[in-house]
Parts: sequence; C-alpha cells; structure tokens
Amino acid sequence: MKALAFLGIDKVGIIDKPIPDPGPNDAVIKTTASLICTSDVHTVRGVIQIPEGRVLGHESVGVVHQAGANVTTCKEGDRVVVNAITPCGKCDPCQRGITSQCGGMLGGYKFTTQRDGNMAEYFFVNDADYNVVVIPDDLTDEQALYTTDMMSTGLVGAENAEIPAGGTVAVFAQGPVGLCATASARLLGAGLVIAVDSKPDRKELAKKMGADIVVDPTEGDAVEQIMQFTGGLGVDSAIEALGSPVTFENCVKATKPGGVISNIGYHGEAGDALSIPLPDFGLGMGDKKIHTALCPGGREQVSRLLRLLQNGRIDPTPLTTHRFPFTEVETAFTMMTTKADNIVKPLITF
Amino acid sequence: MKALAFLGIDKVGIIDKPIPDPGPNDAVIKTTASLICTSDVHTVRGVIQIPEGRVLGHESVGVVHQAGANVTTCKEGDRVVVNAITPCGKCDPCQRGITSQCGGMLGGYKFTTQRDGNMAEYFFVNDADYNVVVIPDDLTDEQALYTTDMMSTGLVGAENAEIPAGGTVAVFAQGPVGLCATASARLLGAGLVIAVDSKPDRKELAKKMGADIVVDPTEGDAVEQIMQFTGGLGVDSAIEALGSPVTFENCVKATKPGGVISNIGYHGEAGDALSIPLPDFGLGMGDKKIHTALCPGGREQVSRLLRLLQNGRIDPTPLTTHRFPFTEVETAFTMMTTKADNIVKPLITF
Amino acid sequence: MKALAFLGIDKVGIIDKPIPDPGPNDAVIKTTASLICTSDVHTVRGVIQIPEGRVLGHESVGVVHQAGANVTTCKEGDRVVVNAITPCGKCDPCQRGITSQCGGMLGGYKFTTQRDGNMAEYFFVNDADYNVVVIPDDLTDEQALYTTDMMSTGLVGAENAEIPAGGTVAVFAQGPVGLCATASARLLGAGLVIAVDSKPDRKELAKKMGADIVVDPTEGDAVEQIMQFTGGLGVDSAIEALGSPVTFENCVKATKPGGVISNIGYHGEAGDALSIPLPDFGLGMGDKKIHTALCPGGREQVSRLLRLLQNGRIDPTPLTTHRFPFTEVETAFTMMTTKADNIVKPLITF
Amino acid sequence: MKALAFLGIDKVGIIDKPIPDPGPNDAVIKTTASLICTSDVHTVRGVIQIPEGRVLGHESVGVVHQAGANVTTCKEGDRVVVNAITPCGKCDPCQRGITSQCGGMLGGYKFTTQRDGNMAEYFFVNDADYNVVVIPDDLTDEQALYTTDMMSTGLVGAENAEIPAGGTVAVFAQGPVGLCATASARLLGAGLVIAVDSKPDRKELAKKMGADIVVDPTEGDAVEQIMQFTGGLGVDSAIEALGSPVTFENCVKATKPGGVISNIGYHGEAGDALSIPLPDFGLGMGDKKIHTALCPGGREQVSRLLRLLQNGRIDPTPLTTHRFPFTEVETAFTMMTTKADNIVKPLITF
Repeated sequence: MKALAFLGIDKVGIIDKPIPDPGPNDAVIKTTASLICTSDVHTVRGVIQIPEGRVLGHESVGVVHQAGANVTTCKEGDRVVVNAITPCGKCDPCQRGITSQCGGMLGGYKFTTQRDGNMAEYFFVNDADYNVVVIPDDLTDEQALYTTDMMSTGLVGAENAEIPAGGTVAVFAQGPVGLCATASARLLGAGLVIAVDSKPDRKELAKKMGADIVVDPTEGDAVEQIMQFTGGLGVDSAIEALGSPVTFENCVKATKPGGVISNIGYHGEAGDALSIPLPDFGLGMGDKKIHTALCPGGREQVSRLLRLLQNGRIDPTPLTTHRFPFTEVETAFTMMTTKADNIVKPLITF
Repeated sequence: MKALAFLGIDKVGIIDKPIPDPGPNDAVIKTTASLICTSDVHTVRGVIQIPEGRVLGHESVGVVHQAGANVTTCKEGDRVVVNAITPCGKCDPCQRGITSQCGGMLGGYKFTTQRDGNMAEYFFVNDADYNVVVIPDDLTDEQALYTTDMMSTGLVGAENAEIPAGGTVAVFAQGPVGLCATASARLLGAGLVIAVDSKPDRKELAKKMGADIVVDPTEGDAVEQIMQFTGGLGVDSAIEALGSPVTFENCVKATKPGGVISNIGYHGEAGDALSIPLPDFGLGMGDKKIHTALCPGGREQVSRLLRLLQNGRIDPTPLTTHRFPFTEVETAFTMMTTKADNIVKPLITF
Repeated sequence: MKALAFLGIDKVGIIDKPIPDPGPNDAVIKTTASLICTSDVHTVRGVIQIPEGRVLGHESVGVVHQAGANVTTCKEGDRVVVNAITPCGKCDPCQRGITSQCGGMLGGYKFTTQRDGNMAEYFFVNDADYNVVVIPDDLTDEQALYTTDMMSTGLVGAENAEIPAGGTVAVFAQGPVGLCATASARLLGAGLVIAVDSKPDRKELAKKMGADIVVDPTEGDAVEQIMQFTGGLGVDSAIEALGSPVTFENCVKATKPGGVISNIGYHGEAGDALSIPLPDFGLGMGDKKIHTALCPGGREQVSRLLRLLQNGRIDPTPLTTHRFPFTEVETAFTMMTTKADNIVKPLITF
Repeated sequence: MKALAFLGIDKVGIIDKPIPDPGPNDAVIKTTASLICTSDVHTVRGVIQIPEGRVLGHESVGVVHQAGANVTTCKEGDRVVVNAITPCGKCDPCQRGITSQCGGMLGGYKFTTQRDGNMAEYFFVNDADYNVVVIPDDLTDEQALYTTDMMSTGLVGAENAEIPAGGTVAVFAQGPVGLCATASARLLGAGLVIAVDSKPDRKELAKKMGADIVVDPTEGDAVEQIMQFTGGLGVDSAIEALGSPVTFENCVKATKPGGVISNIGYHGEAGDALSIPLPDFGLGMGDKKIHTALCPGGREQVSRLLRLLQNGRIDPTPLTTHRFPFTEVETAFTMMTTKADNIVKPLITF
C-alpha cells in the first residue's frame, strides 16, 4: 500500500508498506479520506521524535478492511471513523476516564508516535471495539473527518473552560482547532464569544463558527480589547488554541478572578516552560484554574460529535479550504507547512 | 484601644486607636485571642502596600461588643469567630460562590488590606450576618482561632486537589497552612499522604497531622522520592503550601498525567511569574489541572470547620508552639519574622 | 396603589394598598410590566395557603422608585428586573449556593408566599443589592420579564439534567417553563432535543424554541416513542416540566441507565407522593439521578440570562400570546386559569 | 471442581462443574476465599431469575490459574482479587464511566446473573486486564475480599452523597454495606456521621466503623431523632443502605432542602415502586437530589480501595463474624438467610 511517511527532519514522501494485520481486538481500515493536521507539521519539524519511515496522519475515515476475531461493534465493509486518540480502555488512566493519557503521558496518541499513522491507503486501529465508530448514513466522509480531532479538541477546550450559561469566553487563535473551540463555546451556552485572530479569512470564519466579536491583536492589545468588551471585568473563561507562551499569558490576564483558562494549544515549540504572570494570577490566590487536555477519543465521545453534525449543531466543513487526491498529498503537506493560500484544512481523498 | 499597627517597612508597634463603630449590617468584636500569620510578615516586609498606622492581623476571636441594627445572627456578648476573609455576600463573585474574590481580585481579604485588621482590642466586621460565627460552648477560643485561616486554607487546598478516594497526594511544605492541608487531605479520603519538609519539628508535626510519609528534600530530590513512593507514577494531586516557584514546579513534576496541582501558597515574594515546566505538563496537553485559592470565609464554611473540631476530626492545636499576652505581641511578631525557636503559630491573648 | 390580590379560594381582584417602604437594604420598584404565572393559579386554587388580601405575582419589571440607604447597585429611576426568587444572600443555604432554599424549604420564594407579590403598581424587594438588576438599554421590558422565572427555571432544568455535549434529552410538557427548558437544553449543547406535548400550538412553539422532534403522547406511548428515536436506549436526560406523577414516572422510564431526571414541574397538586417505578430505576441501583430545583434568582444569574437575550441565544417572546393593560388583569388571570384561547403567557402593562 | 449452585427457589447445594476456560482477554482464578453476600440470598429467594445449576457468589479472591493470550496485567500464580462487578470497559456506558451499567441496566453485574458466580473452586473473569487486581503482599485475603463489594458499594454510597467537608450525614441501616458506608462517610470528611440501626451488635459495630451517633428507630422516630441531633435542620446527606421503601422515604425526610439522598440499598423485594414524600421533597422543587449506584468495579477503583486498607484508613475485618471451610458453605448460606447468631459476613475458605 501507499503511505505518506516521515523521511527525516522537514522531509516527507509517499512510500510503500505492507497492509497491516489486525490482532484479535484490532481492526484494519481501508482509507477513503483524510485531513492533514498541523501536529504532523510539528512532528516533521522534529518536535516529536519518530523513526524514519513512520507513516504520518491521524485524521482519517474509511471502510473496515479486516476486523479481529474478538471485535463485535464493526465488521468488514462498514464505513467508519476513528479518532486521532485511540485509548486501550483498560489501563488505569483509561479506567479513570483520562483516556488521552492512556498508559502514560500523552499515551492515547498512538498514530505516528507509537505506530504508523493513517495517512495511508490502509491503517491499523488498536482496540477496535473502543475506537472504531460506524458513520451514520446521513453524514458524509468529510463531515465525519472533523470528529477525529478538530471537533473533539475544540469541544474539550470549551468543556474544560467551564463556561457558565450565558457567561463570557475568549478563544485565542482561530486556526482549525480554535475555530472549533469557538463553535463549541457557543454550543455549550456561552453568552458572549470573543474570538481573537488577525488574519482576515480566519476572522470571517470565526464569525461563521459562532463568535459574537472578533478581536484583532494587530489593532490593539488583545487583553485590553477583551477588557473593554467585558466592562473591565475580563472573561469567565479563556481558551488557548495556539500553543504560544504569550497567548497563554494573555489567557491568564484576560480572565476574571475565579476564571478558567483552558489550554488546547500544543506547546511543543514553545520552549521549556510556560509562564504564569503572578499579578494576574492573584499571586497564586486568585481562584483561577488552568485546565489542559489532549483530544479525547473513543466511540462514545465520537458518537456524540456525530450526532451534533447530524442535527446541524455545528458545521465544520467551511474549514475545508482545499482538496487533493492522495497522489498530491505532498503538495498539500507543503502548503500546510507554509500556510500558503490561507489554507485551513486540506481534504485528501483516496 | 490598643492595636498592633504597621509603622513602615519592617516596623510594627502597638498604637492607640478609637474603638470602631459598626454600620447597620456590621459588628464590632472585643478581641480575646489571636494568632499571628505569616501573611502579616509579608505585608510588613512591603509585599502588600498599606498605609502607615493600618492595624495588622486577621486571625482573631472575641465577644460581640456591638452589632448593627440589621444584624440578626449574633448579639452583644456572644463569643464569636470571624474568618480572615469577610465577603460581602452580594457582589457578582460572591453570588457565584467565588467569595474570596469579593468585589475583585483577592477582594475578600479586607482586614489590613482594605481596613484595619484584628490584632487589636476591638475590631470591625463588615456584613456580620455573613461573617460572624457563634462559637459552640464545647470549643475553646484556641480551637476556634484555627478556623479563621489555617484550617480554612488547608481545607480548600485539599478540596481543590480533587483527590480521588484512596488516591495519592503530596503536600509541599509543612508550615502551619501545609500542616492543615496535610490534615485535610487525610480528612477527605486520600489513601496516601506524602508531606514534604526538611525541618525536624515540622516533619514530626506532619506525621501527627496525618502524613503517612514525610519526604525530606535535603535527603534527595523531592520529586524523585515521591516517584519512588508511587511506583514511578507520581501522585494524583499535589498541594503547594509554600509560595515558591521551585515548589510550584515540583508540584507539576510530581503529579501524574491527569493530576491536579492545588496552590495555596502565597507567591507575593516569588517574582513576576510562575513557571510551568512543559515536558511535565504534557506540552500543555497532559490533562493536568492547576487550581488556586484564597482562604474561603463565611459563616457556613466556618461552621463546618467548627463541627470538624467538635467531633475530633482535626486537632490543629499542636500548631500553637508559643503563647504571649498582647503586651508582648511585638516580640511574637519578631519571632514569627525570624522563625526563631521553631515557632509555628504564636497565640496572643488579650 | 392598585394591586391584584388573593381574595379567597378561586377569587382574585384589584385592591388598594399603600405603596411599600423599603428598609435600608431593600428597594421599592414602580412596575411597568408583568407576566402572569401558572404558580399564581395554583396558589389561588388553595395549593399554597396565603392570607386574604395578599398581593399576587412574581414576574415583574419596573423602575426603581426608592432604594434603601445601604443599596449601592441600583438607584432611583433605573429600569430594573427582579427574579421571582429573592434570596437574602446571607443564610446558610444562600452561603452554600442553594439560594432558592433561602432560610428553609422553598424559602427563596418570598413574593406572595411571605409578603406581597409584584402584580401591583409598586413592589418591595428585599436585599436589593442581591436581587435588583439594571436592564441593559438594548433589551425591552418584555424580554427582561422572561428572566424573572421562565428562563431561569427552564435553564436550571437543563443544567440539572447534566446533558453530555451532543447527548439526548426529552423535555416533558411544553408549557412556558417546558418551552424554556427545551430552548435551554438546546443552548447547553444537547445533540437531540425531544419535546413531548400534544397541543398543536405548543408543538409548533416547541420546534421554534429548539426541539428537533416533538413526540405527541396522544399518538402513542411517549416513552415508547422516545425509545424509538433513541435506538431503544432511552435519553441521557429527561426534564419534567409539568408537575404530574405520570410524567415524572415517564421521565424515569425514558432515561438510560446512568441517566438524569431533572424535575422543574411543581407537584403541588400531585397528591402526597411521587412514585419511582423500580424496574426502570434499576431496583435502586441503575445509577440514575433525580435532581430538582426551584427557579434560581439573584443578580448574577439574571445578568447571564440578560446576556443570552442580548446576543440572541434565546428568544422567549413567542411565548407572549396575549397582552392586557393592568386594568384588565382579572380577565387575563381568568384566561390563565382556564387556558382559554391557547394562552401561554399574558403580558400585563402598567 | 466443586461449586455452590442455585438449585431452585430457596435451594442451594454443592455441585460438580468443569473448570472454566478463559478466552483470549479473560482469566480463570483458583479461589482461596470468599464472602457470602445478602444479594445471593435475594437471588435464591427468586428475586433475580437465574437457571438452575448456576453457580452463586461474587465476592472471591484467589490465584490466577490461567490467563488469556492477550492478558498483560496479571499472570498465572498471582494472588488476585476481582470486584463483584466486571465491566467490559468498551461499551458506551463503560466509556462514559457508568461501568456498573455495562451493556445495559445493571449489566456490569455478570457473576451469577449472566454466567457462573465465584463461590466455586475456580471462576472465570471476563476482560481480565480491566477486572483482575493483584493483591499487595501486605494485605491478607480477608482484607482484600472486602474490596469486592462491601467497601466498593459503601464508598460509592458516600461519594454519591456529596457530603460537604464537615457536613452531616445519616446512614440508614448498618448491615455490612451500611457499615462500610458509615466508614466511607467518615473517610470522606463528614463532620457528623449518624448511623441508624436497632440491633445491639450492629449499633456497636457502627461506632467502631466511625459513627459519631447511633440512632435506634425502636427508641423513637428515626427522622425526629436526626432532626434533634441537627438542630432541626436535617442532614446534608442521607444514605439508604437497606433497600426498603420506608427507609428511602425517611432519607428524603431527614435531609435538608438542597440535600442529597444516596441510595445503595437493593430494592428487589420492595414492590413495584418507591415513594417520594412530596412535602419533604419541596413539592419537587426543594433542590434535593436522589443518587443511586450499583457497586463500581474495575482494577483502578479496587486499587484505591486496597490502598485504603494498606494505610489503615478503613478496617472492614470486624464485619467477619463467622468462618467456614467451603465444605460447610451450605450451613453458612442458611445462616446468612436467617441472619442467625447475629451473622454479618461469613468468610469461606477453600
């Protein structure tokens, strides 16, 4: 089979690999469509160390090619989606519901980091009964693809933000995850959603996804603008969706005493440490909370995301700005690296 | 009346002041006993700016001298305790239950910072129906004193740590607040309480207050020792009870993925920022949480602390290492500043 | 002043009363508009015992006529709204956040039950800083009126239902509170909202307020229909918005194991007891939860409801089916009793 | 192998059965010790319908006899404990953390109801990586046995009671589960634990397990006595540990407005319905909550219970009032049915 692989720092290419075999609890999926994620760009830059030849990708849908002997919830031929995070469901963190940390720190993230990813004609899924989800007939592959990471991460960002009904929230950065966090904050009952971004296309997308106000940090300090829109009080909750120390600090600054900072940005390129500004943190006594998360997976969570799509609660497809056949995936990957042509998410079809 | 006042950086002294008058919702208390808090030492060092002549102190009990016309829950002559934090009960943060941030950041802390404190023969309490608590007959003044700050702060530290029943917790630093956090972690069902301190007397007190294990950071890296006692996994929860950037970082390092860091240390002398070590924070995606709090006040909360004392759940009186009459309060304050003679809490009687 | 008063079982009328005086913490409001609530119909039927001459009503907006000496958050001339529930903010239940039970069971409900209600030209509000909310200029009196009870009760019904994001919920009965619960369930991220009612106008309103599906119990057993729409599983959450033992039982039956029943229906005419069907309750071990609430009040909560109105999250005004001047309030009350002309909420203007 | 089996209503006996075989994810355990549970008495009475010849029992420890090919967390020869509830860890309820309702209502309870129980020389465990727990060397078989059901059920009863720190709780009935609930309420920080029972030996055991007060319903109405001990307010939380409609109603009556009723009693012999007294339920608006649970299982939960035993937080062994070899298990079962000789828990050794 053909697969997009890591071939060394800043280098990717299509290679040949054998189709994987499933164990008794696993499944192998024949891919029909994928999205490229900025995380893979980080990985190829060397932020996460993986061996050469490792297949990239973690946002794919397809059709069950082979299901292990013990698998009961899907069968060959089913059109299915698999979240980027594939917990085992059995280890201590999984049993406590912290499934993204399956087996240890960030351990639920198995595609690419622990084994081949799914930007390939076929891909292996561990613990299929936990992770493989049959796609309802009324949803397209493209819709389902957004449940693999973007919607799942955006939603947990909003959930962890603990926004009171009718409360105020600022979502810092309107990349694909930030846009989904904006939509999710709106979904969960925020009374005022302030998106922060400076790119014109993303500002427009932010409005489309549910932002009431878009604050442009090139037009004045973002925190000051948020203060103005909240009567000088700050927001109840701030969501960090960029992965930048400055943005993280702004989240602390923009929240009220007792407010919640929800981090979903990946700080792999942020240096050794994040910094919490002490005056804005009440010197450690301001009753502020900082929550963090890695995209939650699992069939049950994905099923609820699919229902949100089925009943029109969120429409993430405006994020698909570009489309390529798998044969042109390298071009797509390059564009995703350079963010050329205002690319948000490129859809790859097989 | 006589009162211990701030007379300039590093300078305190007993001064004369008029007995305060209560407004219709307030009360004035005739003090019978007080504890000195390290926070006052910080204040006198200049960490919190207050005018010269401001009365210090926020841990006092006494007898109601005068109650405002609208006050219904206490009356003249009642033996009462008042928490260090005296929320108004009416502002937005109070209505949302974030009473320590009454009216704004750290705004529930009114003694000394917003008006005279209570290391004085008489003291003023705002919103008496919210803040004044009649002491049950079966409790001594000394016992009740610990509900004003130490037990209240220690308990919120343990509550915010979200320790699962039978879970593991590390309490960093065994000063009076840390010792109460140790007792509170035990109280709330922790299965393993690891206290961290190096002073022999405090190590002993930590055991007395409920620690299963005391880790001495002079005998090896504290985080490594905690890892050893938890099978390499780290603790479910870590409580910062010192107010030091290094200790805060150790809390992040010592917790499991998905774990909770609960800060009750006051970082007023910690510089401009706290630092979160990114690898131990899962690069912002380790599902870790950081919670912070300022000592919660209010009659309802203090009443529950009093019940814990009445039924022998916690005995904080071993923390009273020294006793002085009010006439010698300056000596006591100096000892508290230098931590002479292994002083933990000095009890002042009027 | 003129006021609509209880004049004996099944008898109301406009009477003369002196304009009330506020105490130092209270306010008196000059009414501009009110809604009639079915609770008042229950009261006049004798379900809640009140003295003859007691003024009815608890859903009013107006202008501050007089504010007590200690009141700081509103002043004469402010256009304001006051929730039906007016907690003191100081008692033990209030301090624990259970403000609707202020001072004791249902004690936050003071209008009509403890003192004159507000279907009058002027009305008294206790603890004005806790309870009086200035209406933003961009909202009409009519919009603000819905925050006094309908939206507040509907929202707590949805909050207590603990609907997972994208989860399923059934809202039993689409009277004004049920319709607001439907809107609130949608607001808080339900993935499928099933409304239950048989009246054609209410079925239509339910769709308008956010229901995905309306189940008509005259067309087949409601629980069976809900089972069909949820693949035989039942809903994650069911909201009882009628106050009927049968409906309550249906809520237990319609929820999944582990599901939540949220009661906001008033069972004052339901007899002595509610019944929980044991097989559907897992014989007491099905991990089901039953939550109940009385409309939450307070400025902070109402402010968030007002923000939801300002930003178009919920529009309750389709519930206003009829309008009357105060001189015709007796006619309106009679219609509300008989539910003539498919009345939902009659708006009374002063 | 020998096994204690159901042989028809009110009839049990030791029969011969083949040693079970594990599938790839399962394990077979060689039993070393068991406890008899009152649930089995209910089952034999016909409350739960099972086929004749079905092996009884769900509280056993032993040594791994055979582990399936995919099992990684235990191996042959390990001394292990298995909770009464053995979730699959993969179905929707399991993924949402409602593991006791695995696959459907009460579906986590597989021993006896879905397959042979474990009062036998060998027993089968599904999903061994989820359910089998290696016993630490410093714990006896007897101690570990209490984590299979009594401690697990008692603890969830106290957790679901949401007792505020220092709050008040009443535990109705001091059978083995009630005694463990008493210990758990104390463990989780209750400030006042009131146990309710009339049998002298159980009243004594209740004190030993942590009750501050024991209320004897033969000496006056239990609810009235609880009211007296709580200043007429009622308790914050009440735990039903009997499975009786009257006791359930008393729980509703004994709690404050806003209080929590936590049901862990099994109402299989209680008739068709439970009754909620409406006045004490605030007519459905008293902000009361009713929570229910079936004993939670899984390795992670059991591990925390084992830690509580290791560090002396709870000692359930005083509940072992009688000891029998497996050859005399029929005698033990009869005594458990008649509650002869004040039996609480009989320990069976193999």
